[in-house]
Parts: sequence; structure tokens; C-alpha cells
Amino acid sequence: MDTHTIDAADTPPSQSEEETPWLTAREQRMWRAHLEVAKLLEYQLSRELQPHNLAINDYEILVVLSEAPDRRMRMTDLATATLQSKSRLSHQITRMENAGLVLRQECPGDRRGLYAHLTEHGWETMQRVAPDHVRSVRAHFIDRFTPEQLDDMYQALSPVAEHLRGLRGKP
Amino acid sequence: MDTHTIDAADTPPSQSEEETPWLTAREQRMWRAHLEVAKLLEYQLSRELQPHNLAINDYEILVVLSEAPDRRMRMTDLATATLQSKSRLSHQITRMENAGLVLRQECPGDRRGLYAHLTEHGWETMQRVAPDHVRSVRAHFIDRFTPEQLDDMYQALSPVAEHLRGLRGKP
Repeated sequence: MDTHTIDAADTPPSQSEEETPWLTAREQRMWRAHLEVAKLLEYQLSRELQPHNLAINDYEILVVLSEAPDRRMRMTDLATATLQSKSRLSHQITRMENAGLVLRQECPGDRRGLYAHLTEHGWETMQRVAPDHVRSVRAHFIDRFTPEQLDDMYQALSPVAEHLRGLRGKP
Repeated sequence: MDTHTIDAADTPPSQSEEETPWLTAREQRMWRAHLEVAKLLEYQLSRELQPHNLAINDYEILVVLSEAPDRRMRMTDLATATLQSKSRLSHQITRMENAGLVLRQECPGDRRGLYAHLTEHGWETMQRVAPDHVRSVRAHFIDRFTPEQLDDMYQALSPVAEHLRGLRGKP
């Protein structure tokens, strides 16, 4: 997911070359820092969830379902909320169903298909894991910024998140 | 990968409850903005690589190999560089080998195993795709910040990246 900075000497002539808006060194270092933090942080948070026998995607499902009305969501909506394909989500939910964390059920009278429900065990698991997880998030991310940095980054990132959300459904 | 903010009313008594350093609203909104941008951006960049028949992980492999001496790396080092398990990387390299982008070869006299080489086709593919990819990165991320925001975020993220890199090898 990186953008290669191509040295002038390496660059073969190409039609688009002249117009390509390569990143400046200043932009490049920020882009790489973002990628590295995003990737390494996910990796570290995953590692610290392992003692709880949860993948980071499992934890995300627990959080999303726990915040949904009646702690359940349509599978299609859950796929959208977690940015997964339906088939991939289906595999994940099967694993989580086997672990007793969620339950797949048809909703009577609703032809729009299956729901995933958070089980009591799933809810308890999230409650038990959340304190450790929030400590991980603090130790490796949040507590490493000043309050001013937190606010500045929120101001910077928030419109980008909105832009990207707006692109979601579009072809 | 989210941190659930538990409302006081929802929270069952637990041993760790009193000491749990839940995120404040201010911290929470920044954490969610970061997660959302990281995830949605990866999703959008992936979508925009699809016309090139490249997954975002494939593009990353092309970039990493193109920057390596002789455009090759040991499979174990490549797994480390891309934060993947060896088995997962192996599957990916098999796919990319079938697409003619890389080549797996034993290095004579080196008992430390297989190398992945970037093929000429892999190199050309990266050169061809990079201009589009950098435009995507600009449109959805870099150009959405002021120069000051770029510098501030680099200053904030860079020590976090360093911290996380330092944790990588540790058990």
C-alpha cells in the first residue's frame, strides 16, 4: 500500500510521466509514517488480543454488534459496517458462531435475510476484553500524543474520513 | 479494531472496572477517525488498483522488491517487511508468480532459503501502475491536508512508528 518514489534516473520515459504528481519528500515521509503506524498498530493490537483468543476482526464485530439496537445486525449491514465482502464475513461469523460469540438467525417476517446476534457470551467477552484493549490503544497510540496533537489530528482526519465514507457506495 | 466506549449504565461491575482508563470523548473521536481513515483509505486504494488486476498487498510487494538490492529479497525478510506470516506470503507469491510478476528462486550457496525476485514484467507493472496510484493517494489523502498539517502529523506519527517498530521482534 505504499507509493514508490521513483528516482529520476530510474524512471523510464512514459506518456504519463510528465504529468505524474509524485509526492514530495515532505509528503512522502508523512504518507509512510501513516502507513507504518496504521499497519504496525493493527499488528500490535492483534498480538495483544491473542491471549483472549480473539482476532482483531472478531473484536471489531463484537464492538459493532454491541452498539447495534438489540445487539444484532443484518449480515449485509454488518459486512458494510466492517468493510468486508459478504463471503468473507460469512466465514468469520461461522468461526465466531463456533466459539459461541454470535448467533446467526433468520428474522421471521423479514425477507431481507439473516441477522447476526451477539450472544450473552459474546457480550461478556467484549466486556472482559475491552479494558485490556483500551490499555493497548493508550500505550501504543493515544497516550503518545499531546492533547493539542490529538485535537489537531482529529481536525485533519475528520474531513478525510467523511470524504472516504462518501465514496463507499459509489461505483 | 475499535475501542468500545461503555456507558456507565451498561457497565457491569468488574474487578478491573475502576482502574480501566477508558478513552475520553476527545480521545475517542480521534481514535475512531484514525481507524476509519486507515480502513476506508486502504479500501479505496484497493478499489482503484482493481483495473490493474493488482491487490493492494501485491502492489506493496512490488514496491518493496523494487527498492531492494538487485530487486530481490529472502522470503523470510519479505514476510517481515510486509508484516505477513510466511505461509500467507507464500500463497501470495504463488499467485504473483502465476501472474509473472515475481519469481521464486533458490540462491546458490545460500542455505538460508528462497528468494523472491521482481521480474521485468513486475518492474514494468509497478512503473505503469505507480502514476495512477500516486494520484489516488493524493486525491484521497495527501492533498486533503495543509502543508502545516502534513508536517504536524509527521511530527506526531513518526515517534509512534518508531515505538511500534521497536516492539516488532519482541515476544
